[in-house]
Amino acid sequence: MPSISLTDYQSTRGPYVRFRLTPRETSFYDMFAASADNIVTGSKLLMELLGADSSARAEIAERMRAAEHAGDDATHAIFHQLNSSFITPFDREDIYALASSLDDIMDFMEEAVDLVVLYQIEELPKGVEQQIEVLARAADLTAEAMPNLRTMDNLTEYWIEVNRLENQADQIHRKLLAHLFNGKYDAIEVLKLKQIVDVLEEAADAFEHVANTVETIAVKES
Amino acid sequence: MPSISLTDYQSTRGPYVRFRLTPRETSFYDMFAASADNIVTGSKLLMELLGADSSARAEIAERMRAAEHAGDDATHAIFHQLNSSFITPFDREDIYALASSLDDIMDFMEEAVDLVVLYQIEELPKGVEQQIEVLARAADLTAEAMPNLRTMDNLTEYWIEVNRLENQADQIHRKLLAHLFNGKYDAIEVLKLKQIVDVLEEAADAFEHVANTVETIAVKES
Amino acid sequence: MPSISLTDYQSTRGPYVRFRLTPRETSFYDMFAASADNIVTGSKLLMELLGADSSARAEIAERMRAAEHAGDDATHAIFHQLNSSFITPFDREDIYALASSLDDIMDFMEEAVDLVVLYQIEELPKGVEQQIEVLARAADLTAEAMPNLRTMDNLTEYWIEVNRLENQADQIHRKLLAHLFNGKYDAIEVLKLKQIVDVLEEAADAFEHVANTVETIAVKES
Repeated sequence: MPSISLTDYQSTRGPYVRFRLTPRETSFYDMFAASADNIVTGSKLLMELLGADSSARAEIAERMRAAEHAGDDATHAIFHQLNSSFITPFDREDIYALASSLDDIMDFMEEAVDLVVLYQIEELPKGVEQQIEVLARAADLTAEAMPNLRTMDNLTEYWIEVNRLENQADQIHRKLLAHLFNGKYDAIEVLKLKQIVDVLEEAADAFEHVANTVETIAVKES
Repeated sequence: MPSISLTDYQSTRGPYVRFRLTPRETSFYDMFAASADNIVTGSKLLMELLGADSSARAEIAERMRAAEHAGDDATHAIFHQLNSSFITPFDREDIYALASSLDDIMDFMEEAVDLVVLYQIEELPKGVEQQIEVLARAADLTAEAMPNLRTMDNLTEYWIEVNRLENQADQIHRKLLAHLFNGKYDAIEVLKLKQIVDVLEEAADAFEHVANTVETIAVKES
Repeated sequence: MPSISLTDYQSTRGPYVRFRLTPRETSFYDMFAASADNIVTGSKLLMELLGADSSARAEIAERMRAAEHAGDDATHAIFHQLNSSFITPFDREDIYALASSLDDIMDFMEEAVDLVVLYQIEELPKGVEQQIEVLARAADLTAEAMPNLRTMDNLTEYWIEVNRLENQADQIHRKLLAHLFNGKYDAIEVLKLKQIVDVLEEAADAFEHVANTVETIAVKES
């Protein structure tokens, strides 16, 4: 994650921030929402990738890289706010875990697109589009859930559904592995495709980490 | 990890739990013991797998999946108890780390069995049975150690021995990798078998994480 | 990580340590500096490996193993000091994260050397020497930065530069992957070499984790 200038954030607060009683803690909610919205952008780029020819793919990879950089900046802003805030709306460790897992999702999605271009994959194996559809659904649910952290409403349905989606992703992933090894592909091709489907599975796992952290926060608040 | 109903746990405690002075903290010890006992079940299924033919393997995989689900429930119960307890017997982060690492062990053991079935492995390479024996020994030691968290007795021998077993597992694993690459196997077979022996090595690492966390807890208490 | 005797550390402090107001907290700085210096030793062994023939390699691997053991001892000493100290110079979780990431770097560097010997690699692909040069530069910067934790001076340049180096390592790594898959290598050779370049990339990531933790500490102190 590239480092950004500290003054970007320090300029917006006075030297009294560690002592005032009503810190600008609300900004955490906005930051998490922004991070999740960025992931929706990433999941749409993954969907676009599915039908794209090789020249379109390079351009999608470029936009994905921009989205991943935006995600890095969002994560860094959350960490900086966390480290310079005296009072936070949730436990610091949960804010840290939430921001990190959101960042991981974006990193894995970007890596998947980059590998498709880098390895000049002609055709993605059947099943990858199911993996990506599950990720897109999880991204939408996550983006809808983040603003609800403010009121803690309707979060139970969110984390149950994301856990269900992760189980579904796991099934799709294992079927894909069996398919890759069934003899149709040569070993080099298996290696390339396995790396791509594994990284998409890691993205699904990271969505579950986000949901588990949201559950942790909600249980503590209840 | 599938989500479970919050009411399963909330129903057992009154609304006064965050304020009473003698919380039911003892349940953590029972929960860790249950989680470790479940891992012993998993390690025995791994041992059974070694001599099993393909129809027996499918049935072992089924029982392993059930054990892994039981493990998920145990982990979730610990997390829920942790998040809703005002006082805990150890530092919260150590309880979290202990439950997570116990859960990881079960996940890796289940994944190994599932991959053997999924990839229709005819014969496991020589050395895998040594990996599994080390895991079984670590599982027994871990299950014996968990009840001792209550009194902190006899834990030093446990974590020293698990660290020794992990070093042994590491040696076995590296020898297995060298064997897989020695030319006897074709590339697709190497890929399949490497994934299985790697996941068994991850299980050994997770036992060490459990032991290191127990050591951390013991040092803080001393 | 092998366990070491508790008395090694306990003998140096009295039973009053948890209550005295000026604990020997300075030792954390020395411990981090020692851990980073050990990583410089490791990075120099990686550089030596590049030009070494197979008999020299075995001897380099031996020295690398010794450096990795020294690193384990250093990490264990930090953990023990952390768990038995009442007051610490930084947040406990940051001390833990810093020590763990320094330990990870050494583990990955040792694993890389061991795999080169284990797989009897004749010739490392072009690009690996660039990976190792980046690691050596990151090691030097990290060793220079650790003593500055005492005063918090000149740390910004350090973490910006390590983040830049990690981005560079990432580019080199992806180019190496594309090169490995370009058809010149057979599948077994790709598998072996990919494991080695992946583990070197993990070392670069771990340097970034160290830098990010240092940034976290510095922001909290500012």
